[in-house]
Amino acid sequence: MAAFIKHRTKFLLDEDRIPRAWYNIIADLRNPPAPPLHPGTGQPIGPADLAPLFPMALILQEVSGDREIEIPDPVREAYALYRPSPLHRAYRLEQALDTPAHIYYKYEGVSPAGSHKPNTALPQAFYNKEAGVKRLATETGAGQWGSALAFAGAVFGLEVKVYMVRASYDQKPYRRILMETYGAEVVASPSPTTNYGRSVLASTPDSPGSLGMAISEAVEDAATRDDTKYSLGSVLNHVLLHQTVIGLEAMEQMAMAGEEPDVIIACAGGGSNFAGLTFPFVGRKLRGEGDYRIIAAEPEAAPSLTRGVYAYDFGDTGHMAPIVKMHTLGSAFIPEPIHAGGLRYHGMAPLVSQLKEEGLIEARSVHQRAAFEVGVQFARAEGILPAPESTHAIKVVVDEALAAKEAGESRVILFNLSGHGHFDLASYERYLQGRLEDYEYPAEKVAEALAALPVVG
Amino acid sequence: MAAFIKHRTKFLLDEDRIPRAWYNIIADLRNPPAPPLHPGTGQPIGPADLAPLFPMALILQEVSGDREIEIPDPVREAYALYRPSPLHRAYRLEQALDTPAHIYYKYEGVSPAGSHKPNTALPQAFYNKEAGVKRLATETGAGQWGSALAFAGAVFGLEVKVYMVRASYDQKPYRRILMETYGAEVVASPSPTTNYGRSVLASTPDSPGSLGMAISEAVEDAATRDDTKYSLGSVLNHVLLHQTVIGLEAMEQMAMAGEEPDVIIACAGGGSNFAGLTFPFVGRKLRGEGDYRIIAAEPEAAPSLTRGVYAYDFGDTGHMAPIVKMHTLGSAFIPEPIHAGGLRYHGMAPLVSQLKEEGLIEARSVHQRAAFEVGVQFARAEGILPAPESTHAIKVVVDEALAAKEAGESRVILFNLSGHGHFDLASYERYLQGRLEDYEYPAEKVAEALAALPVVG
Repeated sequence: MAAFIKHRTKFLLDEDRIPRAWYNIIADLRNPPAPPLHPGTGQPIGPADLAPLFPMALILQEVSGDREIEIPDPVREAYALYRPSPLHRAYRLEQALDTPAHIYYKYEGVSPAGSHKPNTALPQAFYNKEAGVKRLATETGAGQWGSALAFAGAVFGLEVKVYMVRASYDQKPYRRILMETYGAEVVASPSPTTNYGRSVLASTPDSPGSLGMAISEAVEDAATRDDTKYSLGSVLNHVLLHQTVIGLEAMEQMAMAGEEPDVIIACAGGGSNFAGLTFPFVGRKLRGEGDYRIIAAEPEAAPSLTRGVYAYDFGDTGHMAPIVKMHTLGSAFIPEPIHAGGLRYHGMAPLVSQLKEEGLIEARSVHQRAAFEVGVQFARAEGILPAPESTHAIKVVVDEALAAKEAGESRVILFNLSGHGHFDLASYERYLQGRLEDYEYPAEKVAEALAALPVVG
Repeated sequence: MAAFIKHRTKFLLDEDRIPRAWYNIIADLRNPPAPPLHPGTGQPIGPADLAPLFPMALILQEVSGDREIEIPDPVREAYALYRPSPLHRAYRLEQALDTPAHIYYKYEGVSPAGSHKPNTALPQAFYNKEAGVKRLATETGAGQWGSALAFAGAVFGLEVKVYMVRASYDQKPYRRILMETYGAEVVASPSPTTNYGRSVLASTPDSPGSLGMAISEAVEDAATRDDTKYSLGSVLNHVLLHQTVIGLEAMEQMAMAGEEPDVIIACAGGGSNFAGLTFPFVGRKLRGEGDYRIIAAEPEAAPSLTRGVYAYDFGDTGHMAPIVKMHTLGSAFIPEPIHAGGLRYHGMAPLVSQLKEEGLIEARSVHQRAAFEVGVQFARAEGILPAPESTHAIKVVVDEALAAKEAGESRVILFNLSGHGHFDLASYERYLQGRLEDYEYPAEKVAEALAALPVVG
C-alpha cells in the first residue's frame, strides 16, 4: 500500500479468484437435516417428488453431503460479469460512530440486479438450460429475486415468468420494469393466470398478496407445464449453497486485510444472503478452525427466528410446496403492509433454523425506523445507499460497534451489504418525511400459527 | 489467467492505482483556448471576476497550463470509496453482434451516485471546504449531477442546494429523494426562491425549466450569499480536468488487456464524461504518441456538436454566467419534453468544441429510440442497465462493431459507460411500450440561435 492513501478502503479479487466450488454446510453439521415432507402425504420426499419442479442437478445438490460442489465453468464465467464482489472497510462509518471497532462489509449490490440474488439465479438458470428446460416460473416479493432470475434468464436464454407480490407490484414499478427490460413476463400475485391465484381472488379480490401465495402460483405454473420448471430465490439448501461464494470470497479478502472477524452479521428473510456470508465461517466453527459470533438480523414485522416456532410447516400458503422443519410464523402469515422492506417470508431456511436451534448462531429483530435511520447514516458516511433489507444488518452492526466503544475494546465486525436501495427510494422518502411506522409482531399471532401447523414429523 | 475462465471479463486496479494527478489537455492543445468573456461587459474575465462563484483553487485550475495537476490526498481517499472503476470486456455483446470487434467499456456507474459525476463533485466540495465555504448551490437536469454533489457534500461536510429542472423534478422523484437522503435541499427550477426564477414563473408559470435556467438560479444564489459558492457539473475546464481520472485509469487497464483502442466513444451533453475518457488519449494524439478515432455521441434532440454553431454564447439562459466560445444551439434552447435522457445542455464544453473544430474528434447524433434499443440489447447481454445518456454512446459502438463486421476487420473499441439507468426505468418503460418518440432538431432553429448570439469576440 502506497503511503499517500492512509487506509486501504477496498479489497478486490480478480475473477480468477471466483471460487471453484460452493461450500456445502451439510457436510459439517452436528446433526443430519430433518427431511422435507410431501405436502399431500406428510411422508419424506425423494428426488422423484421434486422432479416436476427442479432439474435433477439441483435436486442432487439439495440432498448432497459433499463438502465442496464444483461450480461449472459457464456459471463462473457468468459470475465474472460482476464477481468477485468487493470487500470494503467502512472507515467513514467507524469515524461517524467514533468506535474502536473495525467494520468491514462485503458489497453484493455490484451485481446487475443490485443484490446477492444472481449468485443462485445464474446456476439455477444454467442447470435448467442444461436439462432442456425452456421456461422458469418464480415468485418475487420486493423484486430483488425476480430481477435476478430475469437477468439470469437473459444470460442463459430462458423465458422467465415472475409472480410478483401485489403490494410490491404496485409500490415498486421500477423493479417490474427492470425485469421486463431483461425480457421477463411479470404479473401481480394473486393473479388470474393460475387456479390458486383465481381461488384467492375469488375470496379476497383486493388481496395484497404474500410470498407464500406467489410461491403457490409459481409452483402450480411449473407443475402444470412440461416446458417449465420452478425456481426459488431462498430457503432451499441448493440456494443457500450457491450463495456461499460470498463468504468464501470474504474469507480471502479478510486475509488480505490481515484481520479475522469477531462478529459476522447479515440480515435474514428466507436466509440466503445470511447463509451466503456466514456458512463458510460456521463451517470453520463446526470444524474447530475458528470462533465467531454470528448474528442474523430480521425485521420485528416478520420475526421468524426470534419469535416464531421451530417446527414442520408448509413452505407456501397454498400448501403445494414441501413441508420443511424451520422457524416459522405459520404459512398463513402475511406481513403488515406498513413493513417497507423485503424479509417478508413466514419461515426461515431449514439450515439456518437448525443452526439457530443448535446455538451456533444468534438472531436479533430490528424495527424498521431504526433500520432506516442507520441506512441514512450509512449512505452519508459510505456513499452507498443500502437496500432496506440490508439496513437491518447495519442496525445490528452499529449496535455492536457502539457496544465495543462502550466496553473500550477493539472488535472486528464483518457484515453483508446484500444490495443497494436504488429501487427503494419511496420507502426512504417515507422515512425522511416521518411517515414510516414501526410494527411489532403480536404474541397472540404466534399462538395462532402454532395451532395451524401441519401435524407431521 | 487461469484456464478455467476462457476470457478475462474485468480489469481491476487497486486503489493505490488511483491517478496521482489529473491530466490537463490545455498543455497539449495546438491553439490556446478562447478566453471566456464577462456577460455584462463582453471583455475577457480574470480570476477576480470568478471569485464570487468559485474558490481560488478551482479558478487557478480553470486557467492552468500545467499538464499535470496533483490530486490532493483527501480527494484520492474519497475517490477510493468507488475508484478505480472497472474496465469490462463486453464479450457477450460482441457475441450478440457476431462481430470481430473487441469492445471494452469503462464502467462509471459504480460510484455511489451512479455515474461519473462524483469524479468532479468530490474535488469541488474539497476545495470549497478548504476555502471555508459552508454551502454549495448547483443545478441538475436528469439528476446525475445533483446526486453527485449531494454525495460529495455529505463526504466533506457542506450544505448543498440543488435547483432541479422542473421536468426532471416531476419525472424523476427517486433522484430527488436520493439527493435528500444525502442531506441536500432540492427545489424545482424555475423556483420562487431566486429573482431569476420568479421572473420566469411570472411570464411562464408552467415552464418545464431547462439546464440554462437552473444554472442562472444557482449562480444567483451563490453570487448573493456570502457563505455559498457555485458548483457546475460539466462544461468548465476544471470539471473536465477532474474527469480525466477515467481515461488515465482506462489507459492502464487497456495495457492490462494487452490492446490499444482504435476507436474511443463517449456520449456528450456538456462534455464531461466524454472529456474524462478521451482527453488523455487526445493528449497522446496531440503529442504524436498514438492515433485514435474519437467520437462524441449526442442526441438528435440537442445536437450542439453536429448541428450547432461554433461561436461565443452565454453559458446560461439568464445571461449571468460567462460567455464562452463553444458549439451552441443558442442559450434560449429548451429541449423538447419528449427527450427522455439527459444530454440536454444548449452548448458544449469549450475544450471539446475546440477539439471538434480542429478536427481531432468526430461527432455523431443519435435518435433516442435507437439508443434505447441498444440499451435493452446491452442490458440483456452484459447485465448492466445503462443510463439513457450512455445508450447514445452504445449506439455508436454497435454501429462501429457492425461496420467492422461488414468490413471483415478487427477493431478495438473503447467506450465510457458513464452511468447506470436505475433511476431511468420510467423511460425504459416508455420505450418498451412503444411510447417513446424521436425528435429531430429543426434547421430553422439553428438559424434562430445564430441570430440570438451575443455580439462579442
